Amino acid sequence: MSTPVTTPKSPVRLRAVDAPDQPDVTPALEDLYRGFEQELLVPLWTEIGDLMPAHPRSRAVPHLWRWENLRRLAAQAGELVPVGRGGERRAIALANPGLGGRPFATPTLWAAIQYLMPGEDAPEHRHTQHAFRFVVEGEGVWTVVGGDAVPMRRGDFLPQAGWNWHAHHNATGEPMAWIDGLDIPFQYVTEAQFFELGRDEIGEDERITPERSRSERLWGHPGLRPLSVGELTPGTPLLSYKWEFTDRALADQLALEAEGFGGTVEPGHAAVRYTNPATGADVLPTLRAEMHRIARGAETAPVRETGSSVYQVFDGSGSVTVGDRTWTVTRGDLFAVPSWQPFSARSEAGSTDSDSGALDLFRFSDSPVFEALQLNRTRIEGTTR
Amino acid sequence: MSTPVTTPKSPVRLRAVDAPDQPDVTPALEDLYRGFEQELLVPLWTEIGDLMPAHPRSRAVPHLWRWENLRRLAAQAGELVPVGRGGERRAIALANPGLGGRPFATPTLWAAIQYLMPGEDAPEHRHTQHAFRFVVEGEGVWTVVGGDAVPMRRGDFLPQAGWNWHAHHNATGEPMAWIDGLDIPFQYVTEAQFFELGRDEIGEDERITPERSRSERLWGHPGLRPLSVGELTPGTPLLSYKWEFTDRALADQLALEAEGFGGTVEPGHAAVRYTNPATGADVLPTLRAEMHRIARGAETAPVRETGSSVYQVFDGSGSVTVGDRTWTVTRGDLFAVPSWQPFSARSEAGSTDSDSGALDLFRFSDSPVFEALQLNRTRIEGTTR
Amino acid sequence: MSTPVTTPKSPVRLRAVDAPDQPDVTPALEDLYRGFEQELLVPLWTEIGDLMPAHPRSRAVPHLWRWENLRRLAAQAGELVPVGRGGERRAIALANPGLGGRPFATPTLWAAIQYLMPGEDAPEHRHTQHAFRFVVEGEGVWTVVGGDAVPMRRGDFLPQAGWNWHAHHNATGEPMAWIDGLDIPFQYVTEAQFFELGRDEIGEDERITPERSRSERLWGHPGLRPLSVGELTPGTPLLSYKWEFTDRALADQLALEAEGFGGTVEPGHAAVRYTNPATGADVLPTLRAEMHRIARGAETAPVRETGSSVYQVFDGSGSVTVGDRTWTVTRGDLFAVPSWQPFSARSEAGSTDSDSGALDLFRFSDSPVFEALQLNRTRIEGTTR
Amino acid sequence: MSTPVTTPKSPVRLRAVDAPDQPDVTPALEDLYRGFEQELLVPLWTEIGDLMPAHPRSRAVPHLWRWENLRRLAAQAGELVPVGRGGERRAIALANPGLGGRPFATPTLWAAIQYLMPGEDAPEHRHTQHAFRFVVEGEGVWTVVGGDAVPMRRGDFLPQAGWNWHAHHNATGEPMAWIDGLDIPFQYVTEAQFFELGRDEIGEDERITPERSRSERLWGHPGLRPLSVGELTPGTPLLSYKWEFTDRALADQLALEAEGFGGTVEPGHAAVRYTNPATGADVLPTLRAEMHRIARGAETAPVRETGSSVYQVFDGSGSVTVGDRTWTVTRGDLFAVPSWQPFSARSEAGSTDSDSGALDLFRFSDSPVFEALQLNRTRIEGTTR
Repeated sequence: MSTPVTTPKSPVRLRAVDAPDQPDVTPALEDLYRGFEQELLVPLWTEIGDLMPAHPRSRAVPHLWRWENLRRLAAQAGELVPVGRGGERRAIALANPGLGGRPFATPTLWAAIQYLMPGEDAPEHRHTQHAFRFVVEGEGVWTVVGGDAVPMRRGDFLPQAGWNWHAHHNATGEPMAWIDGLDIPFQYVTEAQFFELGRDEIGEDERITPERSRSERLWGHPGLRPLSVGELTPGTPLLSYKWEFTDRALADQLALEAEGFGGTVEPGHAAVRYTNPATGADVLPTLRAEMHRIARGAETAPVRETGSSVYQVFDGSGSVTVGDRTWTVTRGDLFAVPSWQPFSARSEAGSTDSDSGALDLFRFSDSPVFEALQLNRTRIEGTTR
Repeated sequence: MSTPVTTPKSPVRLRAVDAPDQPDVTPALEDLYRGFEQELLVPLWTEIGDLMPAHPRSRAVPHLWRWENLRRLAAQAGELVPVGRGGERRAIALANPGLGGRPFATPTLWAAIQYLMPGEDAPEHRHTQHAFRFVVEGEGVWTVVGGDAVPMRRGDFLPQAGWNWHAHHNATGEPMAWIDGLDIPFQYVTEAQFFELGRDEIGEDERITPERSRSERLWGHPGLRPLSVGELTPGTPLLSYKWEFTDRALADQLALEAEGFGGTVEPGHAAVRYTNPATGADVLPTLRAEMHRIARGAETAPVRETGSSVYQVFDGSGSVTVGDRTWTVTRGDLFAVPSWQPFSARSEAGSTDSDSGALDLFRFSDSPVFEALQLNRTRIEGTTR
Repeated sequence: MSTPVTTPKSPVRLRAVDAPDQPDVTPALEDLYRGFEQELLVPLWTEIGDLMPAHPRSRAVPHLWRWENLRRLAAQAGELVPVGRGGERRAIALANPGLGGRPFATPTLWAAIQYLMPGEDAPEHRHTQHAFRFVVEGEGVWTVVGGDAVPMRRGDFLPQAGWNWHAHHNATGEPMAWIDGLDIPFQYVTEAQFFELGRDEIGEDERITPERSRSERLWGHPGLRPLSVGELTPGTPLLSYKWEFTDRALADQLALEAEGFGGTVEPGHAAVRYTNPATGADVLPTLRAEMHRIARGAETAPVRETGSSVYQVFDGSGSVTVGDRTWTVTRGDLFAVPSWQPFSARSEAGSTDSDSGALDLFRFSDSPVFEALQLNRTRIEGTTR
Repeated sequence: MSTPVTTPKSPVRLRAVDAPDQPDVTPALEDLYRGFEQELLVPLWTEIGDLMPAHPRSRAVPHLWRWENLRRLAAQAGELVPVGRGGERRAIALANPGLGGRPFATPTLWAAIQYLMPGEDAPEHRHTQHAFRFVVEGEGVWTVVGGDAVPMRRGDFLPQAGWNWHAHHNATGEPMAWIDGLDIPFQYVTEAQFFELGRDEIGEDERITPERSRSERLWGHPGLRPLSVGELTPGTPLLSYKWEFTDRALADQLALEAEGFGGTVEPGHAAVRYTNPATGADVLPTLRAEMHRIARGAETAPVRETGSSVYQVFDGSGSVTVGDRTWTVTRGDLFAVPSWQPFSARSEAGSTDSDSGALDLFRFSDSPVFEALQLNRTRIEGTTR
């Protein structure tokens, strides 16, 4: 199982970046460093600046991917690349330019556009990687999770915890695109992954498109738990968080604020977190998902957090700042926020395609990992928070 | 903050390893892949075999580091490399040959030998990385954690949760070596690290060597919690787990087994986990530590676990098998067990330097990460466990 | 603070019920028992049958209170008894005939009808006792909790955790009745109670009747948590569980069952538990509340549980059996189920005043106490559950 | 199962204590109250002062039981009352004078002296009531729990979670006495109790008296968890907390204080809580146990807590104040502290029978119930704590 190791030597750096006080390079030290290499050892003192920085300095960089480009290339792939066993999904992932060409939006997060042609199926499989779908446009595809068909429409959020069988089917005459978010990079670096193939064909009786999935009928009633459900598996039992509820929750917060009762995170900034109704915790053990609405003309305070996020513009337009980059964004655009880079967003009145003038941002992050391990830190610039 | 990105293109692989069913390479497909590269995108279908394997296939490999070599090189470094601000510690880390020369024993674990010359101090600092010391030989160094001097002697285990100030001092006329274990690679990949320098000099009143640290006097009594301690910080408040208790616990288990009352993990295999007395949980949020005793002539069943471990032989000798590698080991030897590689150990009667003939193995692992995120799996070969 | 004790002697019983093997009563034994009395001592051997029975034998008895009687007497009280400071509430409590005339529906639960005349206010106070309102008929009263006006209509469930300020106001021209459930007896026996008077008058601006309370606008969206809410207090932040959601959740379960997908507790028996959306746990630390729907002609399996319940018939009619008692019940009727008494219910087709023929039963219980202390046991008769 | 109810009427009080603003007694009101009685109803407004006081006003009173009296009567019972099936235990319980002659030291706690003659056995049984033994004098009895013989000596604390089989055996030629603490009253009022008889005879092989029980050999090592133990049952797996450890922990705290490092609850007041080593929580789901040492001449600040306690003087002498009562106490004396009554203790130098002049107080309480249900409150008089 272990691959042959042709160059077992570790490259000790004689002058490490960020490790200023190195001993003088003498022949004896060179001998020592050759001894280290021979024995597969690396000293701390040449590496400490990289390994133990004063604060997180992400290898990932702030980056923006335009939806129009993603959409165009995905459509091209729809013509050229079949979907089926082996490749499993016609998914095209964001590759952060700081991460050496790997398909990692951030060091822990996978974000991809998935594309399904009319009538196509993506075959059933399951994996330990936690996943979700978020729909920025279109409708007509449904995801079948453990035999439960979940319709997908603009604004819907579909989490799906690891090790559940799932497949997709495009029931319409039009292609459809959406985004997939997973913890693939996190499970890749921690090496926790299992994967199994399922049925090659979805049952005919699963091809009906219901208005609501069975999971929503059991779990989609606010504050009400079905007594028929016993032991719970990891992750949320609710497989779809429909846009109508998310939209209403955000509108309610802004209305409460307007009436003088607070309810928002900060002035003009409403936000909800998608949670597991059985526990109140995040929908997935390793992934957090939220929807933020920034009212016309409002701006959020810059926030730094340990851990990384990916955002997609769901509606409206405005500008977002990540570290030293600022972009004007519009519907569908995706961008990565690396660890400890300050992030803020502004809704730009007038230039919007939405009725309300609000900027709606879907966000997902690896925060549950940091919170479970007590590694989370947040700093809000310019405030005492 | 973001470094300049000179080659922003992602290298789409036209033929990926483990991704057998690729579409035929046509000019149109090549065009598409160039488009992906331009837009910093990578398709799933060329990467899925690497990213989503049927079970964990660690990039790390089973590897053994001999204590005599570590000891010799550390002593050489003691002569050549000063310890002080900048380098911070004379620590030399295991670099797994599968991990590209980085000082990572496994993808998540740091293991190093640390070496302090007579009278030397390693200066005070703190960091979010969780750490411990384990002493395989010698005595006379103490670690001062938050002003509490903790003596170090053979067999002692000293955990120290992130963000506590700490320094080391060698109070004797002899050099001393021990091993450090940290979650540096895990925090490196998740980008959670903070670091601060502390005092350059340890107070003279902290240079006394007590028999027991204050933490042991408060927390080292079995099942007894001091009422004076209020809110707890992450990680164990007990800063030393002395060998006499560990040894007695292991001996008790083997004696119970001999009397017919079980108490061992499997025949001839006693084991204890170091735990936080305030919670019963692991000593550190990201690290588990255990001591295993394999009685003369006994052998452990091969176990696979998600996540990785590093072992050090504390006493006795025997043979250990990791994946397809088997080594004869003796006191001080260290080896890495990558994720999902089967591990077993055998005590070799007759060839031992210990009275009992038992093989004592210290182990640390990243298991708390996997358990907190519900990613843990275990399979014991040849049994139904 | 301690009241004078006029008869300090403890009455040792020479022949205890259920303690068959008592020593012979000799003069020496009588002397000993007199010694016990003098020193305020009681032996176990005369009391064990009462104190440590083979299974719970409740002092409470199964009992039914007819809504028409409650309603009539409450209306009479509306004419004769003012509501205001001192008495605080025009609430009339069920007194279980086994509990010595105390206003305890069961040993741990308080259940009362509360009645408010047109335009009346029940003044503001707060107490550690956890409480809820459930509305079986009428509308027009609202409860103001911490300044948040919560409307009350048929089928609504309004939990209110201890130590929140609250008052009631009847905004209509009609009297209104509802039931209050509290843990008054539990806090009475454990002696945990605090109580404070609030404002004598509700603010004029709190007299408006909103369609939804502020708590519903923040927390009443399925699976969505407002990011603006920080630290949570004990008990649910959602102050009303409206009937439309409860009704739909129950209908969905029966529809899923009819489609062959389960979803019910047992055939024809749908049920939801009211839960805290922030945690998924029970709405109150000491009280559980549920709504059960028994479809036309269905019958539930007899269930025994440690701990006690009170039921109110919300809709339909049928028969219920508690221990050795069986009653025909109809809308508004209340009954007590003592600890470990088997309970079952049957919907009686044809004799119902509801369209569906279903029997809807509102239930509350002290189950969270038993579960938190690991004292819960359940036995379902005639099944292996 | 339900007993016949001969007087089903509830006695509505026309003038309730503490409910000052009652309506005028008119014939109509008397009619209403008769109606209430007939329907088994009780109004809140006549009862509220009793049921919902401004703060806990315990029915229990502060009371002291002298050990010499308990000891004398227990010895008398040893001559007169056999121990065996039916009575089960020769246990004589404290009956708080405020609690109507019931064998309840407080509304939730049972405390009894148990007495076993030379060679006697107390037969095996099990019950859901949680229990412990605490030994103020003597040795030679052991308790066998689930087949594990646990020796009992002065200062030892033996917790035993509900539903474990247990028996006692006096292996010596002397009678022995100790105290039993249980949650019998709590389970009596909540009606959670189950009870089963076990073997009539203890196995001969269980009659050996080991130095340490098997539970201590597995779990009695500080901070070390045996890997062989899988799923845990409620309550601590450690069946004895030996005096030598408790004594040393208290001495360590006072020494740390003397060295200027704190460690005590307040000046001269050391204290430890007995905890479950597997969780760090209280030893039993419903009972907390602690040992307090008040150094010569020291005095504790008066503390009020919701919930009640029973103390036993383990060593030394001094004075204790509970509410408006103050007693001089000495070894073995027991006293009850009702809910919310202020408690303080003073060690009286010179008048002590211990070497150190310290007053050692064993305490047990129902605090875990209050904490699990978020009903706990503490107020320390004369401080800001």
